[in-house]
Amino acid sequence: MRKMMLSTLLVLSIALFSVPALAEGPVKTLPGDITLAQARAVLDAALKKAVEIKVPMNIAIVDAGGNLKAFYRQEDAFLGSIDISIKKAVTARYFNMTTRALGAVSVPGQPLYGIEASNNGLILFAGGVLLVDKNNVIIGAIGVSGGSVDEDESVALAGAAALK
Amino acid sequence: MRKMMLSTLLVLSIALFSVPALAEGPVKTLPGDITLAQARAVLDAALKKAVEIKVPMNIAIVDAGGNLKAFYRQEDAFLGSIDISIKKAVTARYFNMTTRALGAVSVPGQPLYGIEASNNGLILFAGGVLLVDKNNVIIGAIGVSGGSVDEDESVALAGAAALK
Amino acid sequence: MRKMMLSTLLVLSIALFSVPALAEGPVKTLPGDITLAQARAVLDAALKKAVEIKVPMNIAIVDAGGNLKAFYRQEDAFLGSIDISIKKAVTARYFNMTTRALGAVSVPGQPLYGIEASNNGLILFAGGVLLVDKNNVIIGAIGVSGGSVDEDESVALAGAAALK
Amino acid sequence: MRKMMLSTLLVLSIALFSVPALAEGPVKTLPGDITLAQARAVLDAALKKAVEIKVPMNIAIVDAGGNLKAFYRQEDAFLGSIDISIKKAVTARYFNMTTRALGAVSVPGQPLYGIEASNNGLILFAGGVLLVDKNNVIIGAIGVSGGSVDEDESVALAGAAALK
Repeated sequence: MRKMMLSTLLVLSIALFSVPALAEGPVKTLPGDITLAQARAVLDAALKKAVEIKVPMNIAIVDAGGNLKAFYRQEDAFLGSIDISIKKAVTARYFNMTTRALGAVSVPGQPLYGIEASNNGLILFAGGVLLVDKNNVIIGAIGVSGGSVDEDESVALAGAAALK
Repeated sequence: MRKMMLSTLLVLSIALFSVPALAEGPVKTLPGDITLAQARAVLDAALKKAVEIKVPMNIAIVDAGGNLKAFYRQEDAFLGSIDISIKKAVTARYFNMTTRALGAVSVPGQPLYGIEASNNGLILFAGGVLLVDKNNVIIGAIGVSGGSVDEDESVALAGAAALK
Repeated sequence: MRKMMLSTLLVLSIALFSVPALAEGPVKTLPGDITLAQARAVLDAALKKAVEIKVPMNIAIVDAGGNLKAFYRQEDAFLGSIDISIKKAVTARYFNMTTRALGAVSVPGQPLYGIEASNNGLILFAGGVLLVDKNNVIIGAIGVSGGSVDEDESVALAGAAALK
Repeated sequence: MRKMMLSTLLVLSIALFSVPALAEGPVKTLPGDITLAQARAVLDAALKKAVEIKVPMNIAIVDAGGNLKAFYRQEDAFLGSIDISIKKAVTARYFNMTTRALGAVSVPGQPLYGIEASNNGLILFAGGVLLVDKNNVIIGAIGVSGGSVDEDESVALAGAAALK
């Protein structure tokens, strides 16, 4: 209960902070959406992990609306993984779960078989993870592609942990 | 026979009603195609069911031509299900059966395996249902996406029932 | 000043309201984004105007992230305007201005000539208008297509006014 | 001549540096192509300029192959400019000139009129600039979108200057 009140206060302070002192037209970004500073912190944490496991990666961040916010490609990372990393981030946010979890119910014989034909292509293997902030709000997602799917996911999780 | 005559009369009276008093050019819409009033009745019935089962949904209605007629997305419904709900409605109308039925013959080993690659992407799991009016004419379809495929289909069926 | 404090309070109360009493996982929608109730109020106000001027319309609503929230097509409205109305709403939100304003700087000889080649197609004539709530936050956009661009825009403006 | 030898030596030393100590397969990246470290330096210099002129921007970097290397979107930057900034960078590299220069020969009456229909959409106004390294080699391009085309280009030029 105490925890809830605290997170409520946090949300309130964010809301307060977002109201511009001098309104120069309407507010353009919904209060609480991922900032570039947050996205860069996620990218840096993910990069650190990628360097640690020595696998060159593509790393994409999308905001709460599923729109690209930031992206890095390391040297030697697959060119084909540019699109995959972005689609992993989009897929995670579009269905509010990891791409691993969505993939598990989308194989032949499972209820969502064929779902990848939607949304101009979804990615259904591990490496897409939600970005949840300290107020427990989903503010975007990270998608990583370049190594094995387990390696990809470990880098995505390392990135997501930067927001906690 | 008597039954046929009655339904013929119904069709005629609908057709009569649709002919503008003062024709200013050709009639633009096929007599009997789903109206916005009907589409909204279907949406409302579907929404009611979605609220009842507590699963936020995307709900799409297409007309007899397979073109989007109306759409609602509830709060917290998957962003990725916008496209899926529309594709479910389109898929149901394009093949005049539920997406569940089409899916059953499209899995590996079945005759229509791979059909989802056509039509810019079909959806082959439950949640797309035909809209049939009181004259037993297919006037469109409803596609629902947001929960399990069984939940999606239950909402689609609740919507379709509004036309009976 | 008093007005600013009031709108700040409104934002606060919205934020408060959005924190789920019983957290069942992270919050899925950014507090303050357009609700289906708001979208329907906009659609109803736009429909009323369309009926008044006797021009059948396609009316699309997108949220703050540019994703489809709600859509209506009236009887006899152009089928080709389904896509145009959605693209108008997306275009307005993508550039935080009316499609009329964007169009004015995108004609031959103007600085943004050719911009429509981006984003899978933008629409650069009137009929797309921002949706701004009482707290002066952009929470989405409305796109209308079916009549002359002035008619379209008058319907979009009537819809947007429902949020004030 | 002396100058050439020096720059040749530089290229050689870069190439040497890029050859892995223990080759485990062929070298995957062309020696001299833009590195993530360089791309981040360009992004930081561009960001600094954007903050200075107070216009929120989308900033995209592509490598010598025209493939996305890094991307940042600032708060309040247009969602529609994600695609435009990337297309500006791609367009500059695809034709090895600024998007401003290409635009000048692509307006009605000019020889390349209509070129934007190629390559899934080119952008033909200012804001795309080549990235040329100290050896006078084109190693990629930067595309900026968010303000007026002159503002966009000033940010792109500030970014490109980071490599000199």
